[in-house]
Amino acid sequence: MPDNHLAHVAERPEPRERVQDTLAEVTALLRRHRLVEGLIQEQREHGPGHDAGALEDSEVARATRDALEAMLARLHSADIAYILEALPLDERLYIWDLVKAERDGEILVEVSDAVRESLISSMDTDELVAATEALPADEIAALAPDLPREVMDDVFQHLPVEEREQLRAAMSFDEDMVGAWMDFEDVQVRGDVTLEVVLRYLRRFEALPTQTDQIFVVDRNERLEGVLPLNRLIVSDPETVVRDVMEPPVVKLLQHENVENAASAFERYDLVSAPVVDTNGRLVGRVTVDEVLDFVREKSEDEMLAQGGLRGEEDVFASVWKSFQNRWTWLAVNLVTAFIASRVIGIFEGSIQRLVALAALMPIVAGIGGNSGNQTITMIVRAVALGQVTSEQSRQLIRKELAVSLLNGLIWGGVMGVVAIMLYHQVSLGLVMVLAMTLNLLLAALMGVLIPMTMMKLGHDPAVGSSVMITAVTDSGGFFIFLGLATLLLM
Amino acid sequence: MPDNHLAHVAERPEPRERVQDTLAEVTALLRRHRLVEGLIQEQREHGPGHDAGALEDSEVARATRDALEAMLARLHSADIAYILEALPLDERLYIWDLVKAERDGEILVEVSDAVRESLISSMDTDELVAATEALPADEIAALAPDLPREVMDDVFQHLPVEEREQLRAAMSFDEDMVGAWMDFEDVQVRGDVTLEVVLRYLRRFEALPTQTDQIFVVDRNERLEGVLPLNRLIVSDPETVVRDVMEPPVVKLLQHENVENAASAFERYDLVSAPVVDTNGRLVGRVTVDEVLDFVREKSEDEMLAQGGLRGEEDVFASVWKSFQNRWTWLAVNLVTAFIASRVIGIFEGSIQRLVALAALMPIVAGIGGNSGNQTITMIVRAVALGQVTSEQSRQLIRKELAVSLLNGLIWGGVMGVVAIMLYHQVSLGLVMVLAMTLNLLLAALMGVLIPMTMMKLGHDPAVGSSVMITAVTDSGGFFIFLGLATLLLM
Repeated sequence: MPDNHLAHVAERPEPRERVQDTLAEVTALLRRHRLVEGLIQEQREHGPGHDAGALEDSEVARATRDALEAMLARLHSADIAYILEALPLDERLYIWDLVKAERDGEILVEVSDAVRESLISSMDTDELVAATEALPADEIAALAPDLPREVMDDVFQHLPVEEREQLRAAMSFDEDMVGAWMDFEDVQVRGDVTLEVVLRYLRRFEALPTQTDQIFVVDRNERLEGVLPLNRLIVSDPETVVRDVMEPPVVKLLQHENVENAASAFERYDLVSAPVVDTNGRLVGRVTVDEVLDFVREKSEDEMLAQGGLRGEEDVFASVWKSFQNRWTWLAVNLVTAFIASRVIGIFEGSIQRLVALAALMPIVAGIGGNSGNQTITMIVRAVALGQVTSEQSRQLIRKELAVSLLNGLIWGGVMGVVAIMLYHQVSLGLVMVLAMTLNLLLAALMGVLIPMTMMKLGHDPAVGSSVMITAVTDSGGFFIFLGLATLLLM
Repeated sequence: MPDNHLAHVAERPEPRERVQDTLAEVTALLRRHRLVEGLIQEQREHGPGHDAGALEDSEVARATRDALEAMLARLHSADIAYILEALPLDERLYIWDLVKAERDGEILVEVSDAVRESLISSMDTDELVAATEALPADEIAALAPDLPREVMDDVFQHLPVEEREQLRAAMSFDEDMVGAWMDFEDVQVRGDVTLEVVLRYLRRFEALPTQTDQIFVVDRNERLEGVLPLNRLIVSDPETVVRDVMEPPVVKLLQHENVENAASAFERYDLVSAPVVDTNGRLVGRVTVDEVLDFVREKSEDEMLAQGGLRGEEDVFASVWKSFQNRWTWLAVNLVTAFIASRVIGIFEGSIQRLVALAALMPIVAGIGGNSGNQTITMIVRAVALGQVTSEQSRQLIRKELAVSLLNGLIWGGVMGVVAIMLYHQVSLGLVMVLAMTLNLLLAALMGVLIPMTMMKLGHDPAVGSSVMITAVTDSGGFFIFLGLATLLLM
């Protein structure tokens, strides 16, 4: 982190507003830049007589450019990433061009996937290789899926042997494994030396890797023996031997373990870093809390996007075609379920023709079922995600949800029943309304428990798709129950 | 953290599965306990002749109890909290009773709000005072809203003056201010001493507070001058003066600032801790990354719950009445919007009676609008939350979203138009379908941008309620557009 930036930050204490101020300044400068470019363009078109003026204007242009460059040089890479994400494509690429080449790699790691793609496609192979090879192995691995093959080949060839091995290892893990989130900047010491020796060894570092709250104690085969928190190191007598003050690690993560496990351990035990070992107990790297924070945020965003019917994160300034691709799947799924619901109504067209009030009332029955079912599912998906619900408890949960639905059905069904009677002056229609709403709420409760539980048993993530499924069931089910009851009782 | 636990953890490397194993063991022991209790009860009822047997059984009962107690003693408070959350009320309270009293406070801090309430209501004033007063001031403040008034009065009286002041300060902040999330365990040194002196000072601590990655350098008026990262402290020459190696803090948080700002700073700059100052620049405490992680997780859960139509987090084993209270608001809101949609249909009852196919097709038009609108809103709410969208860009976004909708309308409207023609052998009905779907998608795009943008301008959180509003608009709007067009063109 450049000192300049630190000083800058220290003076102005509100980080969020600060970055947004910078964004506003960048936008203002960009507007000036556009204006000047426009003028130059115009003068060029109106003949060579205005050459002197054009020169002057291009000095203004240079001044704007310099001001932007100076501002970017002062900013933290994460802040530049933020600004790039907030700009429309052409301005984004103009700014990207102004960023000092040696920071390209860091910034590519920070930006969102969608924006990264737009930046990478504006760079040639040499630029990409230069940007990438300066990064540590774990960050190269994070960029790898978005880089062209020839870039990665080049990078591989330029890396020192040890890093090449690390990169190969890091790239072999799936996105949801601990290995994909670990870094290799763990500091290792032996257990039989004194703290004095450890301190002397550490002083040889220019600075310890960020997020180093503990160093790892390994035996001669690199097997993890324990950890030495810096806290402990500092408060202990330098004459002590490492083995006497080291602690067992709070957790040892496995490379192939699900990263969700790592995240819960960090949250539960308030960790800053945790060692990662292979199946032989050999230390291979560490996971740090900044990565965990990123993971938690990403995961919650993915869930929000999935719930909103988007396949993945979407650059707000993406092209119409890109947006269409991101959204068509869920729209198609929903059209299919809507079509099924429509065919259910089709069965009862005769009844609707005889009592047209049914057409107006049926969306109410379907709607409340969908809402109530989604409430149940949301609660259960959360409990499942926290691992607090076992399939043994299904029956108990179903019983409770059915009771809540019965209560809701009698109350809200009663209200809408009265409303229906007042609107259509037909008591039997009101009673059908109460009955249908209650039955659809019971159906919603049952499916609201069974759908996520079944998905969990089948090994699927219940957070994705449950909501669409319950709405499909309560729509078609609601129409069927209401129109069916009406046909039976009123026709 | 008890050493016992650490040793236990070190042997079994998968944290997530481990806690769930423990949960399974606890559940098994509880089942045995229930069985034994049942037997004793039965013997008691069948007369005094079986006294000897009852005694024997109660020894079994004691053994079960001892096994549970031993297991609980070994567990981390966070793990006990987890287990309590996963148990139905009666078993939860039985386990709570077995937990060593001196850990009550820590565990109360860890459990979810809903479960905390159930535990607190099972304790008397003395127990609550004892559990609370052992905690640090920031944690007492976190519990305060859930504690009876007389308990807090007692706790206040028992606290030393300094902590009383801290507690009063911590309790004065709203839940969304930095002050509510800070602790007071910051280590402070002066700038004019050598690192050697600092090290000697630190060695007087038994252990440094958790999550201490830096100590704070203050002047005689307690104004923050800089920070000294432990990393720096360790690798620097002990003869150096603090002021020569200290750094400006990456961020200085203000007590009254929104905690969301703190969270973005932690994510963006990969912080472990950050100093909190008052308006005079005096150091008042610090925020640590474990609190930030909790905040991020809590916030994303709140959003999930709001999207699912729940008012707040819900204990899966809550009573039917509690669940009803948590859910009725959104159900009522939805009933109102469904009622409005129903009245829109009511206007066109004449048309439906003449062409009953309209009743079957209308939910398709409404449905696709709701889905597409929710996609737009989800994307925009996310961009707004990240601060990447300014209201100036509304027009540009609306133009893009309208284009996406036009594309979707022509494609999916076309598909459904053909389907409608095939089902009902009426070309004009198919054309009305295409037109209505396209128009409703355009309406969804427009409102999908305007609703969150307007909520943002009015200072509301667009994540809450946007989804309900867009669905209300596209339902009523979809019915109106489709039935209106049909009435105009087909009747």
